[in-house]
Amino acid sequence: MVHSRIFNEGLDKNPGNFAPLSPLSFMAWAADVYPQRTAVVYGDRQISWQEVLRRCRRLASALTSLGVGVGDTVAVMAPNTPPMFEAHYGIPMTGAVINTLNTRLDSRTLAFMLEHGESKVLLTDTEYAKTIAPALQALDNPPVVIDVEDPLGPGGERLGKIEYEAFLEQGADDFAWQLPSEEWNAIALSYTSGTTGNPKGVVTHHRGAYLNAIGNIVTWAMPHFPVYLWTLPMFHCNGWCFPWTLAAVAGTSVCLRRVEPEVIFDLIKRHRVSHFCGAPVVHNMLINAPAQLRQGIEHRVKAMIAGAAPPRAVIEGVERIGVELTHVYGLTEVYGPAAVCAKHSEWDQLPIETRAALNGRQGVRYPMQEAMAVLDPETLEPVARDGQTIGEIFFRGNITMKGYLKNPGATQEAFAGGWFHTGDLAVIDEDGYVKIKDRSKDIIISGGENISTIEIEDVLYSHPSVLEAAVVAKPDEKWGEAPCAFVALKDGAEPVPEEELIEYCRQRLAHFKCPKKVVFGALPKTSTGKIQKNVLRGSARDV
Amino acid sequence: MVHSRIFNEGLDKNPGNFAPLSPLSFMAWAADVYPQRTAVVYGDRQISWQEVLRRCRRLASALTSLGVGVGDTVAVMAPNTPPMFEAHYGIPMTGAVINTLNTRLDSRTLAFMLEHGESKVLLTDTEYAKTIAPALQALDNPPVVIDVEDPLGPGGERLGKIEYEAFLEQGADDFAWQLPSEEWNAIALSYTSGTTGNPKGVVTHHRGAYLNAIGNIVTWAMPHFPVYLWTLPMFHCNGWCFPWTLAAVAGTSVCLRRVEPEVIFDLIKRHRVSHFCGAPVVHNMLINAPAQLRQGIEHRVKAMIAGAAPPRAVIEGVERIGVELTHVYGLTEVYGPAAVCAKHSEWDQLPIETRAALNGRQGVRYPMQEAMAVLDPETLEPVARDGQTIGEIFFRGNITMKGYLKNPGATQEAFAGGWFHTGDLAVIDEDGYVKIKDRSKDIIISGGENISTIEIEDVLYSHPSVLEAAVVAKPDEKWGEAPCAFVALKDGAEPVPEEELIEYCRQRLAHFKCPKKVVFGALPKTSTGKIQKNVLRGSARDV
Repeated sequence: MVHSRIFNEGLDKNPGNFAPLSPLSFMAWAADVYPQRTAVVYGDRQISWQEVLRRCRRLASALTSLGVGVGDTVAVMAPNTPPMFEAHYGIPMTGAVINTLNTRLDSRTLAFMLEHGESKVLLTDTEYAKTIAPALQALDNPPVVIDVEDPLGPGGERLGKIEYEAFLEQGADDFAWQLPSEEWNAIALSYTSGTTGNPKGVVTHHRGAYLNAIGNIVTWAMPHFPVYLWTLPMFHCNGWCFPWTLAAVAGTSVCLRRVEPEVIFDLIKRHRVSHFCGAPVVHNMLINAPAQLRQGIEHRVKAMIAGAAPPRAVIEGVERIGVELTHVYGLTEVYGPAAVCAKHSEWDQLPIETRAALNGRQGVRYPMQEAMAVLDPETLEPVARDGQTIGEIFFRGNITMKGYLKNPGATQEAFAGGWFHTGDLAVIDEDGYVKIKDRSKDIIISGGENISTIEIEDVLYSHPSVLEAAVVAKPDEKWGEAPCAFVALKDGAEPVPEEELIEYCRQRLAHFKCPKKVVFGALPKTSTGKIQKNVLRGSARDV
Repeated sequence: MVHSRIFNEGLDKNPGNFAPLSPLSFMAWAADVYPQRTAVVYGDRQISWQEVLRRCRRLASALTSLGVGVGDTVAVMAPNTPPMFEAHYGIPMTGAVINTLNTRLDSRTLAFMLEHGESKVLLTDTEYAKTIAPALQALDNPPVVIDVEDPLGPGGERLGKIEYEAFLEQGADDFAWQLPSEEWNAIALSYTSGTTGNPKGVVTHHRGAYLNAIGNIVTWAMPHFPVYLWTLPMFHCNGWCFPWTLAAVAGTSVCLRRVEPEVIFDLIKRHRVSHFCGAPVVHNMLINAPAQLRQGIEHRVKAMIAGAAPPRAVIEGVERIGVELTHVYGLTEVYGPAAVCAKHSEWDQLPIETRAALNGRQGVRYPMQEAMAVLDPETLEPVARDGQTIGEIFFRGNITMKGYLKNPGATQEAFAGGWFHTGDLAVIDEDGYVKIKDRSKDIIISGGENISTIEIEDVLYSHPSVLEAAVVAKPDEKWGEAPCAFVALKDGAEPVPEEELIEYCRQRLAHFKCPKKVVFGALPKTSTGKIQKNVLRGSARDV
């Protein structure tokens, strides 16, 4: 039928009405519109948008001279300093893919990533020379190394032939960077710290990075010119896309090398920081810092918190120190956060405990993500919205990775049935809000009942002497499994007898859910600060 | 080379990681996350997001039953009432294209549009039966008519067999609407009121509507839950995409039939309206309304103003009545606004006159539009950033139409050289901000000097007795052309002698720019409220 064709004939894409979506466009915008505004603050340095664009162009130009081009990988090993920020633009401007490396990793794992990702070039802060050097030695085909010597860093050996600033000097100011030929082209490669086997390389694309960068703005209702403190590592899912978000609102990135309470509160005060993000561990650190560090901060600060399930005590604590919290949820495969516990104004009237409980849920999808659902992992049918029935969380939409690098099997598995499988177990409340009950591997099945370790952890965290808590399954002759708690107490807290903590739980939980055993001491953590439940499960067997 | 292929192999699009961009997704989001929040207010009616989605689904379902499907056109002739809002979702949910009709048009023009757009169905408010009936009679193949009988409207004859509410009742609540198969599919058809010849049908697509809907949020830094007053007709470029914007922030649409100061101030007060948009004529009306109408409005209101070039006096006046103004620029071909006079905090310190002058510029592109430039229309080379050299404004990017319906010649012309040609003449300042000097046809060339009629109009508007002013070229023996001013005075203003107004201009403008002649009286306007300069040019020859 001719009829339905009238809207296509002679109405094709052309350079005037179509451009690939890429977050690189945002920096061009910020530099055009707000050339003199500060893009990056670091120590006493201030870099304007005009200047940072110039530096990114130089970086892209210099990389191109090394032969870097479309579909190549450039790795970066750096804390949240200006070069790390610049890499998020300069590398994709060449058509290449940025691979940020977790600075807490060991040489063996880093060598795996550099080899698997086929990195052509590595930008590396000299602080990490001691772990990077053996990694490079392990490679048959090591990348070209550009050393970043940061005057504010602790120093360290140089491993390459050229330093970052000298490298930039080799590049041209007016390098004619281009948008990707396709918005589906890869922009970043990020390795996930799998609990078993080799890390998987999550490949994300320009379109998704563009949309999630905006998703952050819409979800957080970000104003123009936010002052954003980099408490979240940029090596975590490209800082949840915030390096790109900040260009679209001409915001300022306040960089720092170390996430420590003194530094954080000082920077918040000095630069009137308006926004920051972090895992619960960062927020916990701020809550437990001496109150005098907060003196002189009069303005309101907004923070995003993520993590499998931030303990309620942390949510409450952060609110108590005057930070307005937005709770997000996601994982590397969905560019960082792709879900938010979107607030309702009715909640404002509720007591802080109830509010924290509502706000502690993983919530709903970002407006830019197409769907989030709790499904039966076998049938992919939605579970009942009863807050009880456990299913798996699935995502679908534009803020989901292309797949795993050189791993078609894992990619197909991750997308089986047309949904991205998160592996996180959750319930869905009547209001459609998702609440994580456990990572698949962490659930405790005791006497046929599913027990969420998080529920128990929430209770333990609410005890005034508890700093951190983790609960795992301990084999039990009678019940199959029983909860075993590992607890670190706060500095200077009175020792708490095991019986007292168990009794504390019994007053607040169904008895079958209470820990049968409590072990005190520091908790083992991964390089990204996650508590290593697999290690604890081993210990639980022996106690 | 294998190397550059690793980021494509096995990393294809699948239903889990790709969805066509469409603003329809935003309504699904709002209804999921904020089902009980008010989506639409009209008179005493409040419609929640859950309910409005239900109604849109019914509309889509009922239209489908009439045979409406992908690529069909459904026209709407209605003021800013709930059915008009619902049409922006219900129609595209079927895959069809919404064609909003300008309610101020005459029957002949409407008949042309219905025929040229091949509308299958027409939703029409009975107020317009008198103009619609002859239009339908003129058609060989008239659309199916659905009458909208609005209890708050003035009534009018019914032209079809079924009323809107009964039509919705025929539809299914759970109609399984789908995203478009391609985001490039048409979502809307909007006719531009060309000064000569037949109107051209601007075709826009789902991708652009999605991006401009978000562009509004980012550009205006819109919070969650804005209360938006519909002073801008939804038949103007689909209300600049705001019906879609509001879903992405779960905002409330305050509907109204008539744009009158009493109604506007009453609704602002009653619903605590936070945002509205409009042409300068709307803002002018508010400025000149009796001050007591504003009594009781304590909260801050934000407004967007657009139009070829709002007179400075309007910008100043609106600020004086406590409205925070954002000045945008665009045209139907770019989905409404695609440029904004983005503010700088330094401007806040400046006197209101200077601020208004800076803010009166058309500014810079939306972050979601790829480029805006002032180019020499012959060579497509950028003009100097000197605030002097006149060129034409061009756009490029995703917020630009597919083209003109069934008019490949006009489409090619509009996109010649890979840019969209606006036809607006402008200069570009050193800071990269664009300022319109004139529509191509309106410029006055006098003694070899280009004169911007807008500059003269700005001065005339600043005179305390002047309500409206328009300047056109009058043939002049000596100079070729000379400026001729047409002026409407404010109600109750003292008559101003012609000489006094000319002298007023001479004190503020280079003498060659001053009107040689001033004519007093009401100004002729188009159906969209634009002053008809072509009519005035005719008159100017004879005075």
